[in-house]
Amino acid sequence: MASTWGNHIKLSIFGESHGPAIGAVLDGLPAGEAIDLEEVLLQMKRRAPGQDRSSTPRREGDVPRILSGMLEGHTTGAPLAAVIENHNTRSGDYANLLAKPRPGHADFTGNVRYHGANDPRGGGHFSGRLTAPLVFAGAVCRQILARKGIVIGSHAYAIAGVADAPFDPVTVSKEQLCDLSKRSFPVINPKAEDKMRVEIERARLSCDSVGGIVECAAVGLPAGIGSPMFDGVENRLASILFGIPAVRGVEFGAGFAAASLRGSEHNDAFVRENGQVRTVTNRHGGVLGGITSGMPLLFRVAFKPTPSISKEQATVDLQNPEVPQVPLTVVGRHDPCIVPRALPVVEAAAAIVLLDLTTDCQ
Amino acid sequence: MASTWGNHIKLSIFGESHGPAIGAVLDGLPAGEAIDLEEVLLQMKRRAPGQDRSSTPRREGDVPRILSGMLEGHTTGAPLAAVIENHNTRSGDYANLLAKPRPGHADFTGNVRYHGANDPRGGGHFSGRLTAPLVFAGAVCRQILARKGIVIGSHAYAIAGVADAPFDPVTVSKEQLCDLSKRSFPVINPKAEDKMRVEIERARLSCDSVGGIVECAAVGLPAGIGSPMFDGVENRLASILFGIPAVRGVEFGAGFAAASLRGSEHNDAFVRENGQVRTVTNRHGGVLGGITSGMPLLFRVAFKPTPSISKEQATVDLQNPEVPQVPLTVVGRHDPCIVPRALPVVEAAAAIVLLDLTTDCQ
Amino acid sequence: MASTWGNHIKLSIFGESHGPAIGAVLDGLPAGEAIDLEEVLLQMKRRAPGQDRSSTPRREGDVPRILSGMLEGHTTGAPLAAVIENHNTRSGDYANLLAKPRPGHADFTGNVRYHGANDPRGGGHFSGRLTAPLVFAGAVCRQILARKGIVIGSHAYAIAGVADAPFDPVTVSKEQLCDLSKRSFPVINPKAEDKMRVEIERARLSCDSVGGIVECAAVGLPAGIGSPMFDGVENRLASILFGIPAVRGVEFGAGFAAASLRGSEHNDAFVRENGQVRTVTNRHGGVLGGITSGMPLLFRVAFKPTPSISKEQATVDLQNPEVPQVPLTVVGRHDPCIVPRALPVVEAAAAIVLLDLTTDCQ
Amino acid sequence: MASTWGNHIKLSIFGESHGPAIGAVLDGLPAGEAIDLEEVLLQMKRRAPGQDRSSTPRREGDVPRILSGMLEGHTTGAPLAAVIENHNTRSGDYANLLAKPRPGHADFTGNVRYHGANDPRGGGHFSGRLTAPLVFAGAVCRQILARKGIVIGSHAYAIAGVADAPFDPVTVSKEQLCDLSKRSFPVINPKAEDKMRVEIERARLSCDSVGGIVECAAVGLPAGIGSPMFDGVENRLASILFGIPAVRGVEFGAGFAAASLRGSEHNDAFVRENGQVRTVTNRHGGVLGGITSGMPLLFRVAFKPTPSISKEQATVDLQNPEVPQVPLTVVGRHDPCIVPRALPVVEAAAAIVLLDLTTDCQ
Repeated sequence: MASTWGNHIKLSIFGESHGPAIGAVLDGLPAGEAIDLEEVLLQMKRRAPGQDRSSTPRREGDVPRILSGMLEGHTTGAPLAAVIENHNTRSGDYANLLAKPRPGHADFTGNVRYHGANDPRGGGHFSGRLTAPLVFAGAVCRQILARKGIVIGSHAYAIAGVADAPFDPVTVSKEQLCDLSKRSFPVINPKAEDKMRVEIERARLSCDSVGGIVECAAVGLPAGIGSPMFDGVENRLASILFGIPAVRGVEFGAGFAAASLRGSEHNDAFVRENGQVRTVTNRHGGVLGGITSGMPLLFRVAFKPTPSISKEQATVDLQNPEVPQVPLTVVGRHDPCIVPRALPVVEAAAAIVLLDLTTDCQ
Repeated sequence: MASTWGNHIKLSIFGESHGPAIGAVLDGLPAGEAIDLEEVLLQMKRRAPGQDRSSTPRREGDVPRILSGMLEGHTTGAPLAAVIENHNTRSGDYANLLAKPRPGHADFTGNVRYHGANDPRGGGHFSGRLTAPLVFAGAVCRQILARKGIVIGSHAYAIAGVADAPFDPVTVSKEQLCDLSKRSFPVINPKAEDKMRVEIERARLSCDSVGGIVECAAVGLPAGIGSPMFDGVENRLASILFGIPAVRGVEFGAGFAAASLRGSEHNDAFVRENGQVRTVTNRHGGVLGGITSGMPLLFRVAFKPTPSISKEQATVDLQNPEVPQVPLTVVGRHDPCIVPRALPVVEAAAAIVLLDLTTDCQ
Repeated sequence: MASTWGNHIKLSIFGESHGPAIGAVLDGLPAGEAIDLEEVLLQMKRRAPGQDRSSTPRREGDVPRILSGMLEGHTTGAPLAAVIENHNTRSGDYANLLAKPRPGHADFTGNVRYHGANDPRGGGHFSGRLTAPLVFAGAVCRQILARKGIVIGSHAYAIAGVADAPFDPVTVSKEQLCDLSKRSFPVINPKAEDKMRVEIERARLSCDSVGGIVECAAVGLPAGIGSPMFDGVENRLASILFGIPAVRGVEFGAGFAAASLRGSEHNDAFVRENGQVRTVTNRHGGVLGGITSGMPLLFRVAFKPTPSISKEQATVDLQNPEVPQVPLTVVGRHDPCIVPRALPVVEAAAAIVLLDLTTDCQ
Repeated sequence: MASTWGNHIKLSIFGESHGPAIGAVLDGLPAGEAIDLEEVLLQMKRRAPGQDRSSTPRREGDVPRILSGMLEGHTTGAPLAAVIENHNTRSGDYANLLAKPRPGHADFTGNVRYHGANDPRGGGHFSGRLTAPLVFAGAVCRQILARKGIVIGSHAYAIAGVADAPFDPVTVSKEQLCDLSKRSFPVINPKAEDKMRVEIERARLSCDSVGGIVECAAVGLPAGIGSPMFDGVENRLASILFGIPAVRGVEFGAGFAAASLRGSEHNDAFVRENGQVRTVTNRHGGVLGGITSGMPLLFRVAFKPTPSISKEQATVDLQNPEVPQVPLTVVGRHDPCIVPRALPVVEAAAAIVLLDLTTDCQ
């Protein structure tokens, strides 16, 4: 069930990095929803390589072909399937990786899991390329959510240790999120962007890479969405977010920092404002007991540095069991920092989860 | 589907804090497994209140009554159901909370979600008491895992900002984990315990509470367990861990700290040792691409400070919409720090997930 | 996942015939629904042995103890758990069955499936006794359905080859169904009952048993419930109905007889009546393409004759591999016909499915 | 979740009759399995229209394009996705059906379910054309099953009331099933075929259609596969079989006929033969208590007559609420009997279920 997710909105993602095509099937979408494909393409472009000057110069130019579930620009209620062709791949780059698993990649674990039968070219099904259909699916979902008044956005909370200004957990607005989710390098503090770019460039020049943290917010969610225990908003989000390659941690509201606070510092007082119950502060990140409070939903996702680096590394040679270790130089074009391209992926995952949680179903 | 979890091992948890009883149903357990109920009780005792001097003096003395799925000390393959009676509850403590939702609790969100019909006494189904059946289920699963050579343990990585020594991600051993998982206040560095206890006591005296971080490890896992995308080890673990009350964050391996590292610092080199492929370091926490590498599995779980504090707080009066805010003093007995009792809960969740992932099924 | 069912309403059934207790957990029920426990008991009494003179004289007197999910007579939205104690069992009756699997029972297949670790006493988890918690769960669900105007009932369509009058597929009414679902031996044609009783008595006297067919109807279902392909009303119903012991077939509308009709004889013409689209006839049984049409839902369930008969039969001795076959006489008290007690079970299964299909969820 | 099925082998089917393409995603297949695409095409050809002289002369010439999950003729363990382009469709044939729902079709119920947004052309997602990806998926699964010694086959048990000879439930063999599953009009008694063809032709000439029953068998299944209650072999099979358009009933072993038998006539005696426990007769159809007995698995599926007939019928005009009924003549090319093309579909469904049930998973 590895690549299928969801309760009401069922998402199935398929494809391998260097196979014929990748794609997604979204089952359970409400019928009759208008979907603007230009908007979908804009989101996919944010994830595509070569959009921002910080990323690899490859240009995939992915255009999803919709096979079903849409008629005259509206969802039909039947599964929405879309395919993205693979092209402009250079398998040669990866040939010697068959025997020499790249550190930090799934080459070795995938090989064990699938008894050597997995497609190793470009990471196969483990490739970051598989986030393209995820962004497609999320881009469809976010349009339906927007019609319910729910808006999602994110920014580069930190890259290579350089911190952006955080979201204001109380006043973060739809306008701010909309604005951020159109940019290729979204930050709140423009000065942070410059410093981050310097660090990324520095890593690139030393054949290395850097990681970072994405902070994501959703506003417009009504109170009362989600469930206790295993179907809480956090559980559902985490269950998909950890499927994004390179994610190492997920936290909500004050997150890990909450562990150092006192209860009196962390608890958010309730207050009634204009007849509506809300909290004065928002350390809880919009979720209490797995259920939305009506306050902005806030979470952060930690990305490790891109494992593909051109620096020489050490690994094993699976075809040569005599030698304990061999040197490896990963050739090919790789982003020294995945965070800018990861932002639309995190937003897409959030959109799928929030539509799943807010969709009345039969 | 809120309180049901699992693919192969299906767990259903039921009960409300002040209702007649709480319990769990575990479906899909392998048949013929010997279960030592004394061992189960030991795990449950670790979670029970009043075991360690840092926790509330209430004594629940929970003894699960097994209703099905066991015959002469062995699993039968049919669903294993167990019930724990509720007693020694003082509903009066919570009476006025019906109208005045406690900050940091699910009183308000549960009220909205269930249109006021939820059981509000003691938090109802949201209560931390519901972790008792979770620990029961985990205690059963860990015995089956132990027979496969898989051992789980944890320690108080941090409490109130006081840090314990971390696990050594490469050399953490079964012996160390077994030893830790028998203690009521498990730390690696004994000096940390004293400082933590001081902070907890300080919080108690000021009618406040503190949070902390649990670090959990599992050793003995073979390489090749788990799946890419949505059924990765991380996704599965997070999908249950975020169901533990007060959890705000989950991270694997280097976790959020990975975001500040360079690829060359974070990637773990492979090496062959005694014919076995392993990594020299273990920043990846035992999982690559959602699949185990054979190295120790390592993750951390952040707990917010106990929201129940005796300090006066501000909230709304749901029955008095005219007044924007009212003062609230939460009476009753509450742990100033939930972390010591949360350790066996985290281990239990891990045991359920790892048994689910390593169980061949039909 | 054997004993867990459902999409929105999740049902988990546990217990073994001669273990301490049996029970059910229903997760996902809407909150705030009043449940009349007297009504629940009435339904359970219909299934209990010894209620009708045609059944075994054992009296179980099952009273479910509700452990959670109910407060002051209303559902709380948390999982509803109920336990029924086992008593008045005579294990001695079944002692020699451990080695000699009863023909027509799951003794042999259960033994293989669970490697001999299953509870063999009284059929263990395979026992018809496990339908008691199913009837409990269905009795809760049907009360919520009734509030939506959906009513379910059934009758003994055939027993031992004696046919009752069938439901009129167009005019079957709530009143008729309510009336039937209160009786211990519900038939439409009173003369059929007499003949059926004669056949049952004849079977009993010859130490044998007879089978039969249950016809079930639901009226008040709006059009548009269900989904194409694998989540059709038929698929969902069949997925639970085949879990009732002794069920060998399930058919909808004209069912197997449709196979002998021509399209012009089977198709139901549409007509508009009082502004409502309906069909003139109802060979389709209220479902087209997996989705309700608004016409009465009609299906039939075939039950094999009770496999427990006192006549001598032939089986193997699992502890004596040298002997190809040994004689077996099943002692104990068994219904010569299960159909009268199976009617409330079929209705319960239908109620659970229909509530699952008509519940808006989060 | 309508069009997604499965526990271990997850199947997602997408597409609409006159949309760009249809297809399937199969997640959870074991890795490293050789798949012969010629064999797959042979199965798909059996289902394709125009293959047998009894069916419509349309020729779809469907060739699935495999997008992922296969590398050099072997499964990779990643989701196997395949797309079949739609072509040679004549939308004009169905234009007036938008307003006038065809009797016996899902036009009306789909319209209500999806609020008029569903694709009505050719039945959209409800079309029998969607069985093409099902046959594709089944054709892949049956090759993996064959390697385990499990073989599936079926025959036209009855068409238009003309009965074929039934399978011998004890001696049905792999050879017989292999032979049958290669034919376009598989019967056991050749004389039945002639009579069936006469009836089909007669129906065609009178602008009408006929139904029939498919009998399917699987041999080579080990004892002990399946689970009690809701995950029995029957439940799993029924949950997918009722997703095949036009299916009205499913029965196992003696099926509905069992309802007229006595226990002593229906129970199958056990015997030990060559050290193996088996039953002397096979009225139970290879399943006891939801679990395989090791005897041939036998079930029958009832198909209603093709609802598309050229005879004039009566329906409503959804755009003209004043008129209670209007005449309708369905133009287009339709099979007067769907059974010959349905046989490979039933076998495919069985193959998917049996692979799901026999696949060890992580």
